[in-house]
Amino acid sequence: MSEAEDFLKVAHAAREAATVLAPMPRAPKDTALRVVADALVAATDEIVAANAVDVDRAREGGTAEAMIDRLRLDADRIAKIAEAVRQVADLPDPVGEVVRGSTLPNGLELRQVRVPLGVIGIIYEGRPNVTVDAAALCLKSGNAVLLRGSSSAYSSNIALVKIMQEALARTDVPAGAVQLVPGLTRESVKHLMRARGLVDVLIPRGGASLINSVVEESTVPVIETGTGNCHVYVDADADIETALEILVNAKAQRPSVCNAAETFLVHAAIAGEFLPRALAALKDAGVTVHGDERVCGHGADVVPATEEDFATEYLSLDIAAAVVDSLDDAVAHIRRYGSAHTDAIVTRSQGAARRFTATVDSAAVAVNASTRFTDGGEFGFGAEIGISTQKLHARGPMGLPELTSTKWIYTGEGHVRDSPRTVTDCAGR
Amino acid sequence: MSEAEDFLKVAHAAREAATVLAPMPRAPKDTALRVVADALVAATDEIVAANAVDVDRAREGGTAEAMIDRLRLDADRIAKIAEAVRQVADLPDPVGEVVRGSTLPNGLELRQVRVPLGVIGIIYEGRPNVTVDAAALCLKSGNAVLLRGSSSAYSSNIALVKIMQEALARTDVPAGAVQLVPGLTRESVKHLMRARGLVDVLIPRGGASLINSVVEESTVPVIETGTGNCHVYVDADADIETALEILVNAKAQRPSVCNAAETFLVHAAIAGEFLPRALAALKDAGVTVHGDERVCGHGADVVPATEEDFATEYLSLDIAAAVVDSLDDAVAHIRRYGSAHTDAIVTRSQGAARRFTATVDSAAVAVNASTRFTDGGEFGFGAEIGISTQKLHARGPMGLPELTSTKWIYTGEGHVRDSPRTVTDCAGR
Repeated sequence: MSEAEDFLKVAHAAREAATVLAPMPRAPKDTALRVVADALVAATDEIVAANAVDVDRAREGGTAEAMIDRLRLDADRIAKIAEAVRQVADLPDPVGEVVRGSTLPNGLELRQVRVPLGVIGIIYEGRPNVTVDAAALCLKSGNAVLLRGSSSAYSSNIALVKIMQEALARTDVPAGAVQLVPGLTRESVKHLMRARGLVDVLIPRGGASLINSVVEESTVPVIETGTGNCHVYVDADADIETALEILVNAKAQRPSVCNAAETFLVHAAIAGEFLPRALAALKDAGVTVHGDERVCGHGADVVPATEEDFATEYLSLDIAAAVVDSLDDAVAHIRRYGSAHTDAIVTRSQGAARRFTATVDSAAVAVNASTRFTDGGEFGFGAEIGISTQKLHARGPMGLPELTSTKWIYTGEGHVRDSPRTVTDCAGR
Repeated sequence: MSEAEDFLKVAHAAREAATVLAPMPRAPKDTALRVVADALVAATDEIVAANAVDVDRAREGGTAEAMIDRLRLDADRIAKIAEAVRQVADLPDPVGEVVRGSTLPNGLELRQVRVPLGVIGIIYEGRPNVTVDAAALCLKSGNAVLLRGSSSAYSSNIALVKIMQEALARTDVPAGAVQLVPGLTRESVKHLMRARGLVDVLIPRGGASLINSVVEESTVPVIETGTGNCHVYVDADADIETALEILVNAKAQRPSVCNAAETFLVHAAIAGEFLPRALAALKDAGVTVHGDERVCGHGADVVPATEEDFATEYLSLDIAAAVVDSLDDAVAHIRRYGSAHTDAIVTRSQGAARRFTATVDSAAVAVNASTRFTDGGEFGFGAEIGISTQKLHARGPMGLPELTSTKWIYTGEGHVRDSPRTVTDCAGR
């Protein structure tokens, strides 16, 4: 069989499973997730053996040890993965929630109810734990899932999906609801991106180039996630101590993640007081500052920033910096260079906070708080499939409700329509 | 200037206007809409003259009189268009609505607030009233709009957009918020479809081929609207009188719209009793029935249905019909041939209604009611930009809130994050 045929086989299997899974209530889904969690722990040796193949191949290929560590699975990590599945089982089920409803003037009973999206395709890089996390979140929200992980974790992913499918086969949830996209080539990603009608939504998780290529090529609707060029703006009215703490935390607490700060902007009125202390504090935290001309004057260690620095998501202990003459200039800078993920203002001024939150057009805007709080766990969602940086469907951290659509149900007693055509009536046709 | 440069000019103007419009509160937007309504009425002669150019061209081109009538604008129709704009001004503003919010355990105050999408592109066919309707709905929801109407209405649309822009120039709403995409060629649509970053969402309104081509080619996120292959399923437990009334209403009350029924299915147990009466009632209403073999036996006037009939959105006084052996067979038929717009069941059985609403995966599911009620006006939205048949972002009739996104705002007092990495923390990176 060709890779294309292989793909169609698993996609149709997922579609069929989705049909069975969609109307399923919470209890059998939770039971199935707990069976999956137990099965993963029971299969620890098998998973570790499969993972060793990936780790050996990575090492032979000269992959850096830090990356190999991200790839590695051991008994402790597998136990944590299984525990995360049990936590998903404990979360409320978004499916069936009545979002809106009313009795219309004519007596029709109308309600809008959450339903699963159907089949979700997830394209991701890196750690094999995502294979299980994503599958658990999709199952819980009544969706079948097509997983397309990194080729570097292919052996691990084959083992994990096989174990999950075997576990599901002992439950009411159809085993076909979790599928690995077969193949390692770029073609196998293309099959997924062109599977309109079979796949309801694609969620790419990873670097900017992966996400851009999916957005460009996919005919399946896409939810963009994760690119985070986040800013901290230190206003003229900022409390200096607060600004220092937030800046260092936003940059250095965990620099490799999407909600870490990549640029800070400081109002000219406070730059003279703030910058020497900020540069010192960042240096203490091991951070290299790439500053514009007005920043460079305040410290010997500042690397002159190029235009590109302001557009870069470093994901490292580097930060770009600029002095701005007004809050509006800060907002304009963020609009120009940012990725509309999370941007923060530090200020004591209510007016400045109000203007910043109203005019910065990002998924999240923080006032006197670190950008690092933009996270499904921190927001109390209990789980997160990614952070959407697009405006359609979901924006910001995506929990279980963001993996659903809705359906309108209306009930009458022989209601027929006799009203004349309205301006809204399928207008345009 | 080339058409591409012309397009970029209006798209950038719309983008700039969107930035000003987005944080604007309700009052100035409503005022602007009322100014626009008055300006349209005041410019009746100018609009009628521009429209006459389109009407003459259509007539010379041999366009059918029914289509020419859809295109024609007169004083009465212009007054109605203006009145619809005033009605939009009277609707609540979705922007600024707090959708969710809480104080997190650490004291961060978190809220999710509705914000405009930004720049909305609308591609539509037919009637020039859509030019004004769509502009009013976009402005009210804080969005700039790029309008790409039918070339058959190009003169009318130029006049309408010019009048709206001139009216807006006398208000606080930037005149650039309403833009006509320049040019008449298919290329001008392509510019819109490739304007990722400048345009936030595209809404195609029209026939299936328009919508499919936009979905295939657009890199801008798309909301699919309007294709309606709607079904009426007459269950074994249906009340015959109710079923007849609903069937005739769903098909014949207004056959040219997307929520009209295009197929009816009848359970074998009731077919013998129902079909002769249904065929007679449909004949009386001027409807041609295209039936499968089991339907053909019940009436001399039934045209034998081909496979294609069941997949067709007639939008005329035609309906396909089939006998099914069970509710599940009816659902399977709808899943195979339907467009996931609206499907209805007629039944006295609570169990059948429950199973049908749970397993039919459509934007709207009706119980003992005509499919014709799937409409923003009927649902009480006050206005409708279209009916989404996709699952992402919006499903079913789209009112003003469906033209918005959300933004998370969190406020602290120097909050920094010290929690360790969680499983959800930008997972996959």
